Amino acid sequence: MSATITIETSDHTQGVDITRQVQEAVEAACLSDGVCVVYVTHTTAAVAVNEAADPAVMEDVFAALDRLVPWDGPYAHKEGNSAAHIKSVLVGSSVHLPVYDGRLQLGTWQGIFFMEFDGPRRRRVLVKTVTNDWE
Amino acid sequence: MSATITIETSDHTQGVDITRQVQEAVEAACLSDGVCVVYVTHTTAAVAVNEAADPAVMEDVFAALDRLVPWDGPYAHKEGNSAAHIKSVLVGSSVHLPVYDGRLQLGTWQGIFFMEFDGPRRRRVLVKTVTNDWE
Amino acid sequence: MSATITIETSDHTQGVDITRQVQEAVEAACLSDGVCVVYVTHTTAAVAVNEAADPAVMEDVFAALDRLVPWDGPYAHKEGNSAAHIKSVLVGSSVHLPVYDGRLQLGTWQGIFFMEFDGPRRRRVLVKTVTNDWE
Repeated sequence: MSATITIETSDHTQGVDITRQVQEAVEAACLSDGVCVVYVTHTTAAVAVNEAADPAVMEDVFAALDRLVPWDGPYAHKEGNSAAHIKSVLVGSSVHLPVYDGRLQLGTWQGIFFMEFDGPRRRRVLVKTVTNDWE
Repeated sequence: MSATITIETSDHTQGVDITRQVQEAVEAACLSDGVCVVYVTHTTAAVAVNEAADPAVMEDVFAALDRLVPWDGPYAHKEGNSAAHIKSVLVGSSVHLPVYDGRLQLGTWQGIFFMEFDGPRRRRVLVKTVTNDWE
Repeated sequence: MSATITIETSDHTQGVDITRQVQEAVEAACLSDGVCVVYVTHTTAAVAVNEAADPAVMEDVFAALDRLVPWDGPYAHKEGNSAAHIKSVLVGSSVHLPVYDGRLQLGTWQGIFFMEFDGPRRRRVLVKTVTNDWE
């Protein structure tokens, strides 16, 4: 009931649509009915559900986060990437999708996005399912 | 173990207290012990847990979000509602309530709020429960 | 499959690393495989996963939240702590950790932080596990 998605980001900030990989993990787990948790194991990245149809939407989300949390703020952390940590807390380290009949119950326009805030890096996302199937 | 709550919002931005409907869905699912996931299937709305006693609190939350993410930003998405997508990512598409003895384990002041950022619209919220009841 | 962590905060805003207590709750529940939900029952506090190695990171997160949501905003709520409610909505009332072989699947740098936004207060965090162990 566990899978790992590996992502190689290529830019400093970047949204990666991982909807297909998460759906495949749900199928590999033979989950029919339950909840799928998508968990980011990093502190300078996040995961969110939002519009997958027009890429301009996630572009706008990243640009707004840059305006809210500028890279060159007055930060105490010496590694220089505090903005990435702060965005990670604001967006969150996990999303949760109801699963019914083996399918993620996403809305029409929804996709699942890995959000890189301090790339490029090799990243790891865990997909964990909990199920009601034995009822 | 699934229910759908339908919400008709009447304003452009609006908080709707759905605590009672979620509690009823938990009862309808006969869930005694487990976790209840409340999931928004839209990309310009969100769901949050916060104070249900004084309506001024959610008013302040919406006003603060408007200041952080102005409607007329410099946005790439042509539909003109990028601010709603950005707020949706900041607040999140799901909340999770521990359930014990058939009751949502909310704190004294907590309620569950559907948050409309681009209404008025007809909206759909999924309530999914996962249970430990067969232990 | 439930535990309560009690926290006495000493400052007005404060991050408290509760990773060890959550891991102990998972062990007490004898959870081998599943998901652990950490839930804050308050409306002026939150919980987040982020870097536990350098305390400057959480310091930067709290300072950034103060800049985004000033304590003395133009708020409607008469109790004067609207900023704490708004930060609570932005960060969120729960985090979720995959559990495998009895261990929280945290990344190398990750810890779980209770985030106090209106202390000092006595606070209560629920740890709830849902499991796949009977498969």
